Amino acid sequence: MSNSTAQSQKFALAIHGGAGTILKESMTPELESAYKQKLKDALNAGYSVLKSGGSSLDAVEVAVKVLEDSPLFNAGKGSVFTAEGTNEMDASIMEGKTLKAGSVAGVTTIKNPISAARAVMEKSPHVMMTGKGAEKFAAEQKLEIVSPEYFFDSLRYKQWQKIKETEKIQLDHSEDRGDVKPSFDVEFNPNPDSKFGTVGAVALDINGNLAAATSTGGMTNKKFGRIGDSPIIGAGCYANNKTCAVSCTGHGEFFIRSVVAYDISALMEYKNLMLQQAAETVIDKKLTELGGTGGVIAVDAQGNIAMPFNTPGMYRGVVKENGEVEVSIYK
Amino acid sequence: MSNSTAQSQKFALAIHGGAGTILKESMTPELESAYKQKLKDALNAGYSVLKSGGSSLDAVEVAVKVLEDSPLFNAGKGSVFTAEGTNEMDASIMEGKTLKAGSVAGVTTIKNPISAARAVMEKSPHVMMTGKGAEKFAAEQKLEIVSPEYFFDSLRYKQWQKIKETEKIQLDHSEDRGDVKPSFDVEFNPNPDSKFGTVGAVALDINGNLAAATSTGGMTNKKFGRIGDSPIIGAGCYANNKTCAVSCTGHGEFFIRSVVAYDISALMEYKNLMLQQAAETVIDKKLTELGGTGGVIAVDAQGNIAMPFNTPGMYRGVVKENGEVEVSIYK
Repeated sequence: MSNSTAQSQKFALAIHGGAGTILKESMTPELESAYKQKLKDALNAGYSVLKSGGSSLDAVEVAVKVLEDSPLFNAGKGSVFTAEGTNEMDASIMEGKTLKAGSVAGVTTIKNPISAARAVMEKSPHVMMTGKGAEKFAAEQKLEIVSPEYFFDSLRYKQWQKIKETEKIQLDHSEDRGDVKPSFDVEFNPNPDSKFGTVGAVALDINGNLAAATSTGGMTNKKFGRIGDSPIIGAGCYANNKTCAVSCTGHGEFFIRSVVAYDISALMEYKNLMLQQAAETVIDKKLTELGGTGGVIAVDAQGNIAMPFNTPGMYRGVVKENGEVEVSIYK
Repeated sequence: MSNSTAQSQKFALAIHGGAGTILKESMTPELESAYKQKLKDALNAGYSVLKSGGSSLDAVEVAVKVLEDSPLFNAGKGSVFTAEGTNEMDASIMEGKTLKAGSVAGVTTIKNPISAARAVMEKSPHVMMTGKGAEKFAAEQKLEIVSPEYFFDSLRYKQWQKIKETEKIQLDHSEDRGDVKPSFDVEFNPNPDSKFGTVGAVALDINGNLAAATSTGGMTNKKFGRIGDSPIIGAGCYANNKTCAVSCTGHGEFFIRSVVAYDISALMEYKNLMLQQAAETVIDKKLTELGGTGGVIAVDAQGNIAMPFNTPGMYRGVVKENGEVEVSIYK
């Protein structure tokens, strides 16, 4: 039902790229390979930070940025479309040492929403900012602002399609952008289960500090300014040095109602459950009984990692202290 | 440090109208009387529902609507002003039996945000909607939409001032709107501590179902689309028949980081604390140690009520099963 590594580590990092009905039979080998490579890229980016003594906060931010910048995942560049044809993104980050947190919701022009969430945490007295106000704040903080079209770049989409077919175009720097036929049944986003896609990272650094980060493009065809669990501290993201750091992905409404991320921490703090047991209790039992689907990645203060999910697949990966990377997609 | 009634009741209702630096010396007898009367009105409205066998959900909604419709409290009609001179409101509601929840954030034209939160819960697949999208949804649900000017009605403000002075104008239906001198040092909102004002209600009905509701006009002079804890399930509002129903008021950023409302429930569920002990642990110990200020009202499945706060005052009240109403402002 879930992955875990029980050994104690000086530092640890886990990431996810969304959970859902991800089936091997609906995936091409090329696409699977592209997903795994991008997960590895994100893990390596975070690993470099942790290995050199950097903070868990820096590690989760840099790992999430790699995933946000890829069109493969429903976050940042790869965000899905709302009912109005726009891309509205949410992100959150939390620091386990101070319980400081930041989040943005419904932003459309911030290239890396996770960095905006961090700016809210570090450069404002607030925890959560939304919409145009959040974008104004991000601009004042000199974060990279892009036009909304950045998030629907059919050229890059086709380039990426071609890369999958030729595996050479990156080296060639070819400008040939001939039409390619998508190898899966999603119009804009290559994620075959992008309805609830999300990315996230959790980390422990050598100073014993935990951090969690979550970022999403939201729900395909969402309406009415809907916000899911990703920007909600306690629901889609939580970190506390006393217990664990958690990032969630799944059907956000159920994660909000279940206060999933904090509930895992509460089970550890109040019932003395181990991380794996706490995470499985919340996902495999409580969330599942409520009818919710999805998963979490979590790391505790000893570097143990738990990654339970109740869907057929979850893009996920961990990096060990020796730099060895493990990425998985299916159960 | 806090109020409590320990007897078991078939039904129970508690409300709050915000916590903060509410000092007797800065309050006129007339203003204090006006606050107490409006708290009683809200309690009586909720009591009528519960007494006749109605649901806790109906009771908390109707009680909160009374407070939203009054200019005395920082919610609905009395909402404070953002840095842009607008009124942006948030509200949330949760049902303990089903763990269903709904919330709206950053809405400017919905007369009763708490009813919009309930519509999100009952009439949509979502939990949280924001801004224009939430307003569009509320309009489709035939909720009362008002122009933003409704929330800054100087005419009604002056009428209300005059009522305070004459105590007769309501009977007279007088149209005399001569200028009156405000008796306290707040320009637009009569709440002397409106910076973080919020209203809320928690209830237990005769069927053993718990519900919680929270509504706010947000933080005075707030910027950047800031959202506090009020529309965040688990932070400013939570209800679970297994444990308790909670509504919060205070410095929202700290309530989000502390996941206050759910934490009280978790302490009851996982550590078997009684309601009073759980609520005091979270407010008097955990929140206070983090530097947060505010309070909660909470009711458990036996009808016990706890109302701890760490500020000088909190507008609050309870109604007993015999209809006897108790309202308080100071410690």
